[in-house]
Amino acid sequence: MSERLVVIGGDAAGMSAASQARRLKGPEELEIVAFERGHFSSYSACGIPYWVGGDVPAREELIARSPQEHRARDIDLRMRTEVTELDVPGQRVRTRDLDSGAESWTGFDKLVIGTGARPVRPPLPGIDAPGVHGVQTLDDGQALLDSLTALETDGGRKAVVVGAGYIGVEMAEALLKRGYEVTVLNRGPQPMATLDPDMGRLVHRAMDGLGITTVGEAEVTAVLTGPDGRVRAVATADAEYPADVVVLGIGVRPETTLARAAGLPLGGHGGLLTDLAMRVRGHANVWAGGDCVEVLDLVSGRERYVPLGTHANKHGQVIGSNVGGGYATFPGVVGTAVSKVCELEIARTGLREKDAREVGLRYVTVTIESTSRAGYYPGAAPMTVKMLAERRTGRLLGVQIVGREGAAKRVDIAAVALTAGMTVEAMTALDLGYAPPFSPVWDPVLVAARKATAAVRAAG
Amino acid sequence: MSERLVVIGGDAAGMSAASQARRLKGPEELEIVAFERGHFSSYSACGIPYWVGGDVPAREELIARSPQEHRARDIDLRMRTEVTELDVPGQRVRTRDLDSGAESWTGFDKLVIGTGARPVRPPLPGIDAPGVHGVQTLDDGQALLDSLTALETDGGRKAVVVGAGYIGVEMAEALLKRGYEVTVLNRGPQPMATLDPDMGRLVHRAMDGLGITTVGEAEVTAVLTGPDGRVRAVATADAEYPADVVVLGIGVRPETTLARAAGLPLGGHGGLLTDLAMRVRGHANVWAGGDCVEVLDLVSGRERYVPLGTHANKHGQVIGSNVGGGYATFPGVVGTAVSKVCELEIARTGLREKDAREVGLRYVTVTIESTSRAGYYPGAAPMTVKMLAERRTGRLLGVQIVGREGAAKRVDIAAVALTAGMTVEAMTALDLGYAPPFSPVWDPVLVAARKATAAVRAAG
Repeated sequence: MSERLVVIGGDAAGMSAASQARRLKGPEELEIVAFERGHFSSYSACGIPYWVGGDVPAREELIARSPQEHRARDIDLRMRTEVTELDVPGQRVRTRDLDSGAESWTGFDKLVIGTGARPVRPPLPGIDAPGVHGVQTLDDGQALLDSLTALETDGGRKAVVVGAGYIGVEMAEALLKRGYEVTVLNRGPQPMATLDPDMGRLVHRAMDGLGITTVGEAEVTAVLTGPDGRVRAVATADAEYPADVVVLGIGVRPETTLARAAGLPLGGHGGLLTDLAMRVRGHANVWAGGDCVEVLDLVSGRERYVPLGTHANKHGQVIGSNVGGGYATFPGVVGTAVSKVCELEIARTGLREKDAREVGLRYVTVTIESTSRAGYYPGAAPMTVKMLAERRTGRLLGVQIVGREGAAKRVDIAAVALTAGMTVEAMTALDLGYAPPFSPVWDPVLVAARKATAAVRAAG
Repeated sequence: MSERLVVIGGDAAGMSAASQARRLKGPEELEIVAFERGHFSSYSACGIPYWVGGDVPAREELIARSPQEHRARDIDLRMRTEVTELDVPGQRVRTRDLDSGAESWTGFDKLVIGTGARPVRPPLPGIDAPGVHGVQTLDDGQALLDSLTALETDGGRKAVVVGAGYIGVEMAEALLKRGYEVTVLNRGPQPMATLDPDMGRLVHRAMDGLGITTVGEAEVTAVLTGPDGRVRAVATADAEYPADVVVLGIGVRPETTLARAAGLPLGGHGGLLTDLAMRVRGHANVWAGGDCVEVLDLVSGRERYVPLGTHANKHGQVIGSNVGGGYATFPGVVGTAVSKVCELEIARTGLREKDAREVGLRYVTVTIESTSRAGYYPGAAPMTVKMLAERRTGRLLGVQIVGREGAAKRVDIAAVALTAGMTVEAMTALDLGYAPPFSPVWDPVLVAARKATAAVRAAG
C-alpha cells in the first residue's frame, strides 16, 4: 500500500524535498501532496532585487520549476491553498482554498514543513500605506515594480530603504539602478550588521562613494503619508526622509505559526528544531527545513537562524533522501554569506567578535589589505580581509571580506577551513590557485592567516 | 659572534628566505650574503606573459624588490655573480663575477639553495636561431619583446608556440593580443596535459574559438631558418609551420647542477629533497626551496615537481623563519594551478586519472556542467567541473575546472577540502557563499560533489 507525503510550502525546501523523494520513490509507492498558499512555486527570492533593478528582465526567470512542471513529475502541488491547522497526532492537515474558501482535511503518513519566513513589519503608524513594500515574495516584488513604474511616469525619484542588511543593500543597488535617489536607514551604527562594525564602516564608505546615503542609528518611528494616503516620508526620532517609495528590508522571522500551535519544538530564535536528518525533534515522521528552522552553527556549537536559499535547498535534498528511503544528513552551517552593492563585494563566514564573546571564546583579530589580482595586473582591486582566530589553539573562527571584483567568493576558502576545524597556521600552507590574473602570489586569505598566526603567538 | 648565511639565487625562494631571516635577526647576529647570476632580483616570472602581451606596461612592475631595496635591508645581494662550486663539508661556495671574471670563495654557517629551474630546450637543429625565445627570465622576456618590436615594424605576424602547458597557452594569448597569427604545437593529444584529456579537449575547443590554432600530437623535429639565419618555420614529422617568431614553452627542470656536483640528495624528478622544515635531507645547515626542489604531494603521498612562484614564496618564508631561529614547516602541496587564455579559465587540483592509477588508487569520476552565477543573472557563464573520488572511502582526489569568469578560483574550495582529507559526501554540505551574482543556489563544486557521492555509492 502506498504512503502519503504531505508537504507544507511550495518553495525551495518543500519542493526540493518533494522532488528528491519522488526521484527515489515512484507514485505507486509514495503519493506526494504539496500545499502552497501563494501564486508561485520553487522560485528564487534571492533574485528579486536583481529583477527589480532590471538585471533580470522577467519574473519567470526566477522560477526554477512551475506548478505544472511539478505536477508533470507526479507531485500533486495545490497552489493558493493554505494549511490552516496541523494535527500531528491525528496525522492530518486542514487546508483552505484561498480562492473558493473551501476547507478540508488531508491525512499524511509523512510530513514536511517548509513554511519559510515572514518579513519583520514593525507596527508603526503608516507602515501599511501605499508605496511601502516588502520584498519577500514574487508577489511583493511585482507590487513594488508596479509601484515604481507608476512613479517613474509621474516623476517620483526618492526611495528610502529601511534596514541595511543583505536585502537592504541589494535593494539600494536596485533602486539606484532605476535612477532613484536612495537613502538607507539603519538601526545600528554601520550597515551590514552581519559584519563587525569596523568592516561595516568600509561598506558604509563604499556606499557613500556609490551615491547611496546611509544613515546609521536611525530607528524609524513612523511612515508619513500625504493627502492621497500614499507614503511621502519616513520619520526617525531626529529627522524626516522624503520618500516616493519605501522598501522594508528589516529581516525575516521563521514562519512557525502552525508548528507552534501544533506544539512542535521551537528554539530561541523561533525556528523549528530538527535533528541531523532534518526530522523535527521527537517526531519520527515529521521533517522541516528552510527558512522555518534553526540550524546548528558548527563554529559556536549553538543554534542559529540563517534564512538562506542555499540552506533551504540542501535541507530539501536531505529531507527528500530520508523520506524516500535513502540516508542523508545536514551537519550544520558555518555562517557563510556573500552580497554585493554595485561593484562592492561583501562576504563573511564564521563568528564575528560579538559572536565569539557570546559563546565564551577568547580570540585575536587581524585585518589586512591586499588585492584581488597581482598588483601589477590590470583590474587588481583592493580588498580588506579580517580574520578571527581562537587564542592558544589558533583555530580559525571567522573571516570577513570587503572588496571589489573577485573578493566575495574567496570567503569559501575560509568556509571549508572552518568546516575542517583548521588552525590559521595550517591555513598559511594552503595550496591555493595562483596566477597573476587571479591572485597575488600570496592570496589575501593567506596573508591574513600569516598575520593571524603571528597574533595568536603574540597573545600567548 | 655573528653567523653568515649564504643564499644562492636572488629570486622568490632565496630572497624571501633572506628577508624573513633578516626580520628575525639583525645584521649584528646574522650576516646575509646572496648571489644572483642574472640582472634582476625578486621578480614575478609568472607575470612575463602579461608584460609581453601588453597588459603590464613595464618590466619594472614585475620586480617586487630591487637589489638596492634588498641592500637597504642589510642583505648583501651580489648581482651578476654565479656560484660555480658548492663545497658542503668545507662550508663554502666559489663564485665568479660574470662581468669581471673574478673568482673567490665565500664561507657560510648556513646555506640556502634557491637556484630555480632551467627551461627545457631540446637539442634540435636551429633551436638557437635568432627569433627562437624562451620566457623563463626577465632577460628572456626582454629579448622576445625586442624581437617582436622589430618584427612588427617589418610586418611579420606569425608566431609558433611550442608546448601547450601553462606558459604555452599564456604566451599564445600574449601573442594573439599583439596581433599575431598563433599556432600552438603540442606533443600530447590535447593542450594542458596537467588536465585529463577530456578536460583538455574543452580547452582545445575554446582556443579554436579564440582563433588560436592548436595542433596535437605534434612533435617538433627542427627549427627551420631562412637565408638570413633567422627562424622561418617549425617542422614536425608531418608538416611545416611558418613562423616569424617561436616561443618555447615546453616546461622547466630543476636547476640542480651545483647540488648534484656537491652530492646533495636529489629525487626522481631531479629536484632537491628536503624535510618538512625545508632542510636538505641529511644536512642540518642547508636549506633549499622554490623551483629547484621536489615537494610532497599530500594526495598521492609521492614527491612531485611543481615549479610555481606561490610555492617558492612559501618555501622562502619557511626557510627564513627556521634560519632566523623561529619554526615553520611546509607540509606539501595538493597540486593546485590556475591559468587563463583570454576569457577562458582553467584550474586543477589534486590527482588526474592517470596520477590516481599510478599510485594504485581506485576512483570514480563525474563531470558536470553548471554556471558561474545564477542562471538568470547577467554574465552567468558555463563551467565544467570534473571531480575524482576514491572508491569505497569517497575521499576527494581531484578537481578540474574549465570555464569563464569566476571559474578558476573555485578550485580553492577543492584545494582546502583535499588538504583536510574530506570526502565528497562531506563536501555536499559545505556552506559556500551564495548570492545570484556569485553562484547558482548549488555551487558548481557542490553539484559535482553530489554527483560524485552518488557515483561512489553506485561503484560500491
